[in-house]
Amino acid sequence: MITLRKLASIIGGKVIGAPEQVISGVSDIKDGAPDTVTFLFNPKHQELINRTSASVIIVSDAAILNDKSGIVVDNPRLAMAKVLKLFELPNNIEKGIHITAIIHKSVKIGKNVDIGAFTVIGHNSQIADGTTIHNNISIGDNVVIGTNVTIYPQVAIYSRANIGNNVIIDMGTVIGSSGYGYETENDIHHKIPQIGSVIIEDDVEIGANCTIDRGTIGNTVIGKGTKLDNLVHIAHNVKIGKGCLLMGLVGIAGSTTIGNYCIFAGQSGVKNGIKIGDRAIFVSKAGATKSLPGNKIYAGMPAREIHEKNKRDAAFSQIVSLKKRLKQLEEKLAR
Amino acid sequence: MITLRKLASIIGGKVIGAPEQVISGVSDIKDGAPDTVTFLFNPKHQELINRTSASVIIVSDAAILNDKSGIVVDNPRLAMAKVLKLFELPNNIEKGIHITAIIHKSVKIGKNVDIGAFTVIGHNSQIADGTTIHNNISIGDNVVIGTNVTIYPQVAIYSRANIGNNVIIDMGTVIGSSGYGYETENDIHHKIPQIGSVIIEDDVEIGANCTIDRGTIGNTVIGKGTKLDNLVHIAHNVKIGKGCLLMGLVGIAGSTTIGNYCIFAGQSGVKNGIKIGDRAIFVSKAGATKSLPGNKIYAGMPAREIHEKNKRDAAFSQIVSLKKRLKQLEEKLAR
Amino acid sequence: MITLRKLASIIGGKVIGAPEQVISGVSDIKDGAPDTVTFLFNPKHQELINRTSASVIIVSDAAILNDKSGIVVDNPRLAMAKVLKLFELPNNIEKGIHITAIIHKSVKIGKNVDIGAFTVIGHNSQIADGTTIHNNISIGDNVVIGTNVTIYPQVAIYSRANIGNNVIIDMGTVIGSSGYGYETENDIHHKIPQIGSVIIEDDVEIGANCTIDRGTIGNTVIGKGTKLDNLVHIAHNVKIGKGCLLMGLVGIAGSTTIGNYCIFAGQSGVKNGIKIGDRAIFVSKAGATKSLPGNKIYAGMPAREIHEKNKRDAAFSQIVSLKKRLKQLEEKLAR
Repeated sequence: MITLRKLASIIGGKVIGAPEQVISGVSDIKDGAPDTVTFLFNPKHQELINRTSASVIIVSDAAILNDKSGIVVDNPRLAMAKVLKLFELPNNIEKGIHITAIIHKSVKIGKNVDIGAFTVIGHNSQIADGTTIHNNISIGDNVVIGTNVTIYPQVAIYSRANIGNNVIIDMGTVIGSSGYGYETENDIHHKIPQIGSVIIEDDVEIGANCTIDRGTIGNTVIGKGTKLDNLVHIAHNVKIGKGCLLMGLVGIAGSTTIGNYCIFAGQSGVKNGIKIGDRAIFVSKAGATKSLPGNKIYAGMPAREIHEKNKRDAAFSQIVSLKKRLKQLEEKLAR
Repeated sequence: MITLRKLASIIGGKVIGAPEQVISGVSDIKDGAPDTVTFLFNPKHQELINRTSASVIIVSDAAILNDKSGIVVDNPRLAMAKVLKLFELPNNIEKGIHITAIIHKSVKIGKNVDIGAFTVIGHNSQIADGTTIHNNISIGDNVVIGTNVTIYPQVAIYSRANIGNNVIIDMGTVIGSSGYGYETENDIHHKIPQIGSVIIEDDVEIGANCTIDRGTIGNTVIGKGTKLDNLVHIAHNVKIGKGCLLMGLVGIAGSTTIGNYCIFAGQSGVKNGIKIGDRAIFVSKAGATKSLPGNKIYAGMPAREIHEKNKRDAAFSQIVSLKKRLKQLEEKLAR
Repeated sequence: MITLRKLASIIGGKVIGAPEQVISGVSDIKDGAPDTVTFLFNPKHQELINRTSASVIIVSDAAILNDKSGIVVDNPRLAMAKVLKLFELPNNIEKGIHITAIIHKSVKIGKNVDIGAFTVIGHNSQIADGTTIHNNISIGDNVVIGTNVTIYPQVAIYSRANIGNNVIIDMGTVIGSSGYGYETENDIHHKIPQIGSVIIEDDVEIGANCTIDRGTIGNTVIGKGTKLDNLVHIAHNVKIGKGCLLMGLVGIAGSTTIGNYCIFAGQSGVKNGIKIGDRAIFVSKAGATKSLPGNKIYAGMPAREIHEKNKRDAAFSQIVSLKKRLKQLEEKLAR
C-alpha cells in the first residue's frame, strides 16, 4: 500500500490526481483492477486508458490521461521496473544459514548471507556480504561469489568459478561444466581435461537451465551487465563482452569472442573460434559461420546482413516473372 | 501376469485364441518374446505377425492374425497405452512424507500425498490429494498443486505457481523462472521485476529440463491437456491454449498467444508478442515471425505456409534451365 | 611440479632443453606464464613460440622451437590431453559415502565408491567399483552403474537405466525421462506409458542439462564412446552408434537410428523414425528430414549434401545477371 504522492516521488514523476490516493498493487492495463497502478508505454493506444479499471496510469504525456489519475514520467517502461520492484513478493528464505546446509569449514562467509536447506559448498569457497544462496544448490571448491548475488534452487557451480557482484543465477543453471574437448585418434575421442574456469562479471543475470562450460586452460568469461535468457549454451573459452543480450536456446560455440552490447535473438548461434564485433545483432535462428563486424543486423544461416538476406529471399518471387518473359521472347523469336 | 481374457476385457477388445493363456510382459513386435503381448499398428506389415515370438498380438483386424492368438480392437495404439499402463513399473517412492523433507508448517497437504527426501516446500503452499512429489525438489511459497499430480526429482517451482490436477512434471524442469525483461537506458539493462506467476492447467505434461517463465504482471498460462517435450522454453506472459503439442527444443518468446491444438515440431520457435491461430502446425525448425492464422501447416524461417515454402525451394532447380534457355536465345539472336 | 624429463616420458616425447627444468602449471601459448608448459598445434604459427612467456612448448617439429625448451611429439593435441590430465584439479568429494546420502539397503555398492551429500539411490540399484556419485543427485530403482563412472551434482537418473563403465555425466543432466508418446483421439492426447529404459554404453560422456528419454517398450541406446555436449535432447527409442559427436542444442527425435562415428554440429536435428548412415556429418542447424546415407556432409533444412546446398545458395546471385541479360534480349528484339 502506497500513496500516489509517494509512488511518484520514488519513480521521479509528476502526480496527476489526488496525491493521497492509495495504491495496493499493479495490474495490466488491459484488465486493470481498482486501486492498482498500470502503465501505458505507447501513447497511440490511448483508448486503453479509457477502458482500464486501474486507478492510476503511468504515462509519458499528461494530455492522454483524459481526467484519470496518473503519474507522468519520461520513460514509463523504466518507471515500471521501479514500481514492480516495490510490489515484488520476495521469495522467502529463512535468514542465515540453514542447519541442513553442508558448508566446508574452510568456506569464508560474509555478513547477511542466507544459505538454504540441502545446499552443499566445497572447500575454500568464499561468499561475500548480502548474498543469498537458495536451497538444493551444489557449489564446488574454491568458488568465489561476490556481494548481493542471488542463486536460485537447483543450480550447480563447479570448482573455481568466479562470480562477481549483483549477479543473479536462475533455477537449474549449470556453471563450469566440462568443456567439450576431444582429440580423435583412430576413431577414439580422447578427452581433453578442462582445467580452466568461468568468470561471471558484475551485474550479469543468467536464466534457468543454462550451461556455461569452463575453459580448457584459460577461462570462459561473461562480461559485465550481460543478460542470458533460459536454456542458453556457452561453450568453453568463450569470451562475451559487456551488456550483451542472449535469448532463449542460443548457443555460442567454443573459443568464440563476442563484442560488447551484442544481441542474439532466440535459437540463434555462433560457430567456434570466430569474432563478432560490438553491437552486432542476430535475429532469431541466425547462425554466424565466420567472424562478422559489429553495428550490423544479421539474419539467416549462414548469417548475412539482413538486407542482403531479404534481397535473396525476394529473388525467389522474380523467378516466376523471369520465366514468363523468357517464354514470350522464345515465342516471339519462333515466329 | 494376466490372462488373455482379462487383458481383452480391460482394453475392450475381442479375444482370438485360448482365453486362459497367461501374459507376463510386453515386447516389441520385431523381437517379441514368448509369453508377452505385442502390437501391430499398420495391417500392411502383416509379415511381422508371422515372424514375431510374442504370444499375443493386438490388431485392428482378426483376419491378419493368421492363426496366432490376439486381441482385436479399433485402435491398437490406444490399446497399447492401456496395456503399457498395466505393465508399468512404478518408480518407487516410500509412502508418506520423508522425514528429511523440509515442509513449512503452514503448508496444507491433502490425503495420500507422498513427498520424497530432501524436498523443500515453502510457506503457505498447498498440495491436494493423491499427489506425488519426488526427492530433491524445490517448491517456493504460496504454490498451489492440484490432485494426482506427479513431480519428478530435481524440479524447481518458484513461488506462487498454480498447478492443476493430473499434471506431470518431469525431471529437472523449472517452473516460474524470472521472465527476461529489461529496459535499456544508456547501455544499462535495468531489470524489470517479474511479479506475475505461472498457471499450469489440468492434464498438462511437461518434459525434462524445460523452463517456463513467470509473467511480468499477469501470468504465463499453459492450457489444459497441452504436452511439452524436453528442453522447451516458454517465456513470460505466453498463453498457450488447450491440447497443444510442443516438441524438443521449441522456444516461444514473450507475450505470445498460441491457440488450441497447435503443434510445434522440434526446434521450431515463435517470435514475441504475436498470435498463432488454433490448430496451426509448425514443422521442425520453422520460425513464426508474425501472427499467423490457424488450420495451416507452416515451414521455414520466416515461417510460410508449407506449399509456398516448397514452391520457393523448387524454384531453385528452375534457374539452371532458365540459364540454358536464355543462352540459346542469345545465340539465336546473335546469328 | 614435474620435471621436463618426467613430463616427456609420460607423454612419450623427446626433450629439447634442460631435462631437470621444473614445470609447475599449464598456460595458453598466447599469454603463457613462466615455469609453465604450453602447446603449439599448428607450426604455421611459429611466431607464437618467440612471443610466449611459457618455459616449455610442446611441438610436432623440433626445428620450430628456436632455442626454446620443449618436447617433440607426433600429436601435440593428444599430448595436451595427457598434460592437462596431470594438472587437473580434482573436484573434491570426501571419500566414501556421505552420512546424509539416502541409499536403499538393497543397493549393491562396489569398492572405492564415493557418494556425496543429499544423494538418493533407490531399491536394488548397483554401483560398481571406483565410481564417484556427487552430491544432490537422484537415482531411481534398479539402476545399474558400471566402474569408474563419474556423475556430477544435480543429475537425475530414472529407474532401470543401465550405465556402462567410464561414463561421465555432467551437472543437471536427466537420464530416463518419459518418452514423448501420445495417442490422440477426439483432441485428447492419451499418454502412452514408457516402460522401456536407457542404455548408456562404455566410455560415453554426456554434457550438462541434457535429456535422454527412456524407450516405450525397448531401450534408448547411446553407443560406446559417443560424446554429447550440453543441452542435447535424445528422444525415446533412439539408437545412437559408437563414437558419435553431438554438439550443443542438438535434438534427435524418437525411434531414429544413428550410425557410428556421426557428427552433429550445434543446433542440428534429426526427424523421428529415420536412419542416418555411418560417418554422416551434419553442419550447424542442419535438419535431417529423411533417411540419409553415411560418409557425406549435410547442411540446411531440409538437410542436403553440402555441395548441393552451396549450389542452391549460389544460384541466387545468378538471378540478377539473368535479369540483366533477359532485358538486353528484350530490347534487342524490340528494335
